[in-house]
Amino acid sequence: MLTNNKIKLIKSLDRKKTRTESGCFVVEGEKMVRELLQSRFETVEVFAVQPYIDELPATLKRKAEISAVSERDLERISFLKTPNKAVALAKLPDSQIIDSTDLTGLNIALDNIQDPGNLGTIIRTAAWFGIRNVFCSTDTVDVYNPKVVQSTMGAIFKVNVTYCNLNELAATVRKASVPLFGTRLDGENLYQTNLPENAIVVMGNESKGLSPEISALMDSNLKIPSYAPPTSDMESLNVAVATAIMCAEFRRRMGANG
Amino acid sequence: MLTNNKIKLIKSLDRKKTRTESGCFVVEGEKMVRELLQSRFETVEVFAVQPYIDELPATLKRKAEISAVSERDLERISFLKTPNKAVALAKLPDSQIIDSTDLTGLNIALDNIQDPGNLGTIIRTAAWFGIRNVFCSTDTVDVYNPKVVQSTMGAIFKVNVTYCNLNELAATVRKASVPLFGTRLDGENLYQTNLPENAIVVMGNESKGLSPEISALMDSNLKIPSYAPPTSDMESLNVAVATAIMCAEFRRRMGANG
Repeated sequence: MLTNNKIKLIKSLDRKKTRTESGCFVVEGEKMVRELLQSRFETVEVFAVQPYIDELPATLKRKAEISAVSERDLERISFLKTPNKAVALAKLPDSQIIDSTDLTGLNIALDNIQDPGNLGTIIRTAAWFGIRNVFCSTDTVDVYNPKVVQSTMGAIFKVNVTYCNLNELAATVRKASVPLFGTRLDGENLYQTNLPENAIVVMGNESKGLSPEISALMDSNLKIPSYAPPTSDMESLNVAVATAIMCAEFRRRMGANG
Repeated sequence: MLTNNKIKLIKSLDRKKTRTESGCFVVEGEKMVRELLQSRFETVEVFAVQPYIDELPATLKRKAEISAVSERDLERISFLKTPNKAVALAKLPDSQIIDSTDLTGLNIALDNIQDPGNLGTIIRTAAWFGIRNVFCSTDTVDVYNPKVVQSTMGAIFKVNVTYCNLNELAATVRKASVPLFGTRLDGENLYQTNLPENAIVVMGNESKGLSPEISALMDSNLKIPSYAPPTSDMESLNVAVATAIMCAEFRRRMGANG
């Protein structure tokens, strides 16, 4: 039931502190809430308009407490400009341990990504390319921030997102012989470099790029070649766009190899 | 000088109607205003803090009226959460005519893109790949919207952005024998298709994709292959990400050819 205390709790879940203390995060919208119920995540409670509840399959209805709310109440708990049929409270997963046996194929690591939309888009892209792991430095924006959750378009339920110290990640993957590829404007041309079947692609902060400390840990630093006229000012790519181009190229070559 | 009328004008330039009536748009921030002054765009007036003005080269100072303002006044005219040294009023360029002689290389066309951040990121990506033309359907979000301008990171001054009817664009490029490539989830595999040296890549709306009417005008429809497990729900890519992967692949092949 949507009590005043629950309204207060939900509206405070845009803050990381409240998410950590309550162990909950918010998932919104018709499609996202359905994907949450189908996922390995635990759903605490769903607040939805009656027609949405009527259309949910019985197997999904059994997965959580489901409370019918009015459009007006939905507006009160929504973070969206246009609330969309359902808001769910989900349980934060236990923090994960880096499992080096699970690093086959392509993985992504992020060094201090700050923009919620960028992180969400990167996770969405990772799901498209069948990437299992996205490792985030502890100073990367929190994936359970409502803006990030929504911009993953459901991919948050399909990709393992693990927060960790990237130095420790580097030590672990080195033992597993998985190479680390940084992305830098002065790196080697992506298209002229041999790419292995297992790899971790590491992307840096939106304005500062990879920190020198992390960059030094890389087995190789790659660049996406620019075709801008040489007279032009230094161009750059958005970090989600650069991640996508890297993933697409790794995947294209893996496809060709296997 | 920053009069009250100018403050009122600037703050109203987040509306397309006011931009059209006044013939002006807003450019913000240290780097962006400098790039505006270096560009082919006409600058009406720059409002900046004194240290910024002191550092501007004389050649740029001559390009527009420059008025010193206090930090407090800068806050009053800024659209940014953290105002950044300078705000400029720039003149909207004359609307452009599609010039079929100028379609060499890779071009982008956009069908009903709605998100300002997506449009800005696409124009930024176009500049990186040395793409001269981005054609926008008349129902695409306005490029002179302050959010779009800022998210281009200066690329708006380097890429020709033309609003047009995509049916008319298709007729013009057909005469010039430049093929049109749509992007669709059920298209041909991008990596298994011959790509020509001159082309227009057409991207569709964020949720609906290419409209059936526009899709029917394409010489070919391409897809970016997904590597998500087949059991998983239908994934999708953000439109700016998909545009970037398309551009990167066209450019990679053009590089190999020429």
